Amino acid sequence: MGQTLAEKILQKHTDQVISGAGQIVQCKVSMVLANDITAPLAIKSFKAMGAQEVFDKDKISLVCDHFTPNKDIDSAEQVKVVREFAEEMGITHYYECGEVGVEHALLPEKGIVGPGNVVIGADSHTCTYGGLGAFATGMGSTDISAAMALGETWFKVPPTIKVNLTGTPGKFVGAKDFVLNQIGRLGVSGALYKALEYSGEVVDNMSVEGRMTIANMAIEAGGKVGLFPVDQKTLDYAATAGFSGGEAMVADQDATYERVLEIDVTDMAPQVACPHLPDNVKAVDDTSGLQIHQSIIGSCTNGRIEDMREAAALLKGRKVNSKVRCIILPATPSIWKACMKEGLMEIFMDAGCIVGPPTCGPCLGGHMGILAGGERSIATTNRNFKGRMGSLESEVFLSNPSVAAASAVAGEIINPAKL
Amino acid sequence: MGQTLAEKILQKHTDQVISGAGQIVQCKVSMVLANDITAPLAIKSFKAMGAQEVFDKDKISLVCDHFTPNKDIDSAEQVKVVREFAEEMGITHYYECGEVGVEHALLPEKGIVGPGNVVIGADSHTCTYGGLGAFATGMGSTDISAAMALGETWFKVPPTIKVNLTGTPGKFVGAKDFVLNQIGRLGVSGALYKALEYSGEVVDNMSVEGRMTIANMAIEAGGKVGLFPVDQKTLDYAATAGFSGGEAMVADQDATYERVLEIDVTDMAPQVACPHLPDNVKAVDDTSGLQIHQSIIGSCTNGRIEDMREAAALLKGRKVNSKVRCIILPATPSIWKACMKEGLMEIFMDAGCIVGPPTCGPCLGGHMGILAGGERSIATTNRNFKGRMGSLESEVFLSNPSVAAASAVAGEIINPAKL
Repeated sequence: MGQTLAEKILQKHTDQVISGAGQIVQCKVSMVLANDITAPLAIKSFKAMGAQEVFDKDKISLVCDHFTPNKDIDSAEQVKVVREFAEEMGITHYYECGEVGVEHALLPEKGIVGPGNVVIGADSHTCTYGGLGAFATGMGSTDISAAMALGETWFKVPPTIKVNLTGTPGKFVGAKDFVLNQIGRLGVSGALYKALEYSGEVVDNMSVEGRMTIANMAIEAGGKVGLFPVDQKTLDYAATAGFSGGEAMVADQDATYERVLEIDVTDMAPQVACPHLPDNVKAVDDTSGLQIHQSIIGSCTNGRIEDMREAAALLKGRKVNSKVRCIILPATPSIWKACMKEGLMEIFMDAGCIVGPPTCGPCLGGHMGILAGGERSIATTNRNFKGRMGSLESEVFLSNPSVAAASAVAGEIINPAKL
Repeated sequence: MGQTLAEKILQKHTDQVISGAGQIVQCKVSMVLANDITAPLAIKSFKAMGAQEVFDKDKISLVCDHFTPNKDIDSAEQVKVVREFAEEMGITHYYECGEVGVEHALLPEKGIVGPGNVVIGADSHTCTYGGLGAFATGMGSTDISAAMALGETWFKVPPTIKVNLTGTPGKFVGAKDFVLNQIGRLGVSGALYKALEYSGEVVDNMSVEGRMTIANMAIEAGGKVGLFPVDQKTLDYAATAGFSGGEAMVADQDATYERVLEIDVTDMAPQVACPHLPDNVKAVDDTSGLQIHQSIIGSCTNGRIEDMREAAALLKGRKVNSKVRCIILPATPSIWKACMKEGLMEIFMDAGCIVGPPTCGPCLGGHMGILAGGERSIATTNRNFKGRMGSLESEVFLSNPSVAAASAVAGEIINPAKL
């Protein structure tokens, strides 16, 4: 019987024969990830269980990206715990200071994760690597601690929803819009513990970065993973990043899907997820005119160089509205440098943006752009839960970088085509 | 009878005849300043006293620079209070978002303060503008609120300590070293409610930026103000910044000084203020070898373009030690852009620094580089009080930008000449 992408990847990491959804399988993991919020919990659990050593010092990534540069004493103490553990265990992939980037942008860029991997991370957006054809998913810190010691974990093989993306997108419409539209259709629980698997001509034409934007938000529909086939683009991306291994991979023709969702992107407008759930999705024109106080362009969803270019194209020669704080957070030091070399930084600064260092920052209400009561932010981030970016009385609207940039200029949510 | 610089400036702003130290005088103020921490208190007091309007909407500066980009909900709410007040009163010089810089770097750069001004600010380092020949001093928020309503305030005319800087400084020794050395000699209370007035060949040769670095730290010896004569350099700086007014000004030959402190800078080593007071000053070699975890290059003391160049000269072609987080905070958007255009940003990024947006940040333990217990930071900032930059169990060492940059590379406090 044919296998879905999820089944194919898991099969490579287990001795059990995968026969279909619902089966419990024990898998070896390619990479175990935690960050400055979740690693301290995992480390505590790791020590409580009496573990002495990690299973493989090259297969654990610890990335201090959420509250850094340290926003307060508590975050400094958290990073210290992670740093000392990394030193004690000789962890290869420990990142802080000038080397740190938003974990889900950093790991693919450095070739630490890639096609065919099974990656688990104590962070819900670990699913991002599905854009590279990796079975990657978020877990709690205690599960992560066990995997740090053992190098394996268990999964229930997820049923798969196939999402077929067809048609030709218009200007200012891209990966973020496709996934917001899909979440709007499925609902935030619509793919609960299921794999999402993407196919169709739109996927074929999409950059690996765009695929990661979509995979990143699999969890916003409840998905266990969001998977893309591995094609030449993926292999080129991985090779450039220095990832060793990986081969072309598509689902079997006769694989079993729970459901196929057809999305024609032709005539799709830029999408906006309105408060307070990512599935409260509307066409941008149905939200336009709403005054905003902040625009956040960054995060593991849309903080890559393509996103920066997209924002810069709208900001070039324009000024951010005087009542808006437009905060640009390139997701990694490499992206930051690329922005400088390509002249994007100059555009951002001339427009009156604030450019911050790579950090998750305001996305999770961490720092670097928190909202007061009554304030509203447009953001290229992934969640707009009540209070996510600050006050319980604030609102977050999710969009693509073009909408976020155009809205920063207009001072209100606007269709970039109408700027 | 001759007048000191302090007396001369105050005389221009009062109808009373100033006869000497100790006299109480009522003065008109040129500019009243508050920031995101102190303005909310001043505004509360302003409203409590029943004030309806500010005395002059062009003569109040509100700069939201301490906890921005908003580090948390509380700071977002603080900024909101200031923003709404600025809108209500039509304040001309309100700065936040992409326009904001560290207040004491921003105001001189924009020509908002200049030679001959009397400036009061709800921030202790308001004394910075003494570098431009302005009688500038910090006050509490309630005094500031009264001045916001009335446009005047009272001073006790301070006695003056003259500091005569002579000799020729060696490499890696400059304004920051001179002032640290002076604070070491006077002690943190040595100039309590006194004016410091600078003179000598070193002053003549010093840039206006360097003078501001020295004036900035007048308060660290308890000084009411730190004053420099107004010469052609000052007038050129002020004119370039767009400041209108200002004329050359020196103290009278027969002015009365409480004391003259002679400092010969020849053979002076780079100075380091050790924990936990700015007067615990040693030659850098007496502190070298101490491991550091962080290096902060920025602040109202040393966040100007000269400081950035000085740091970059040491960091060029080198790498920050892997155990050090080196955080660069250009003090204003203009300085940030100049760093980019001059290629300094590239040097910083290639060296593995973190470049942040303009903010006071870690200097006062605000955000963007807070220390955990047991951690040690070298910093170009102005205060190293216990717990100033984070944990009560952390330590801060104050230095010039060369020492801070060299130490970031070495991983320990080092004399730049020995890097």
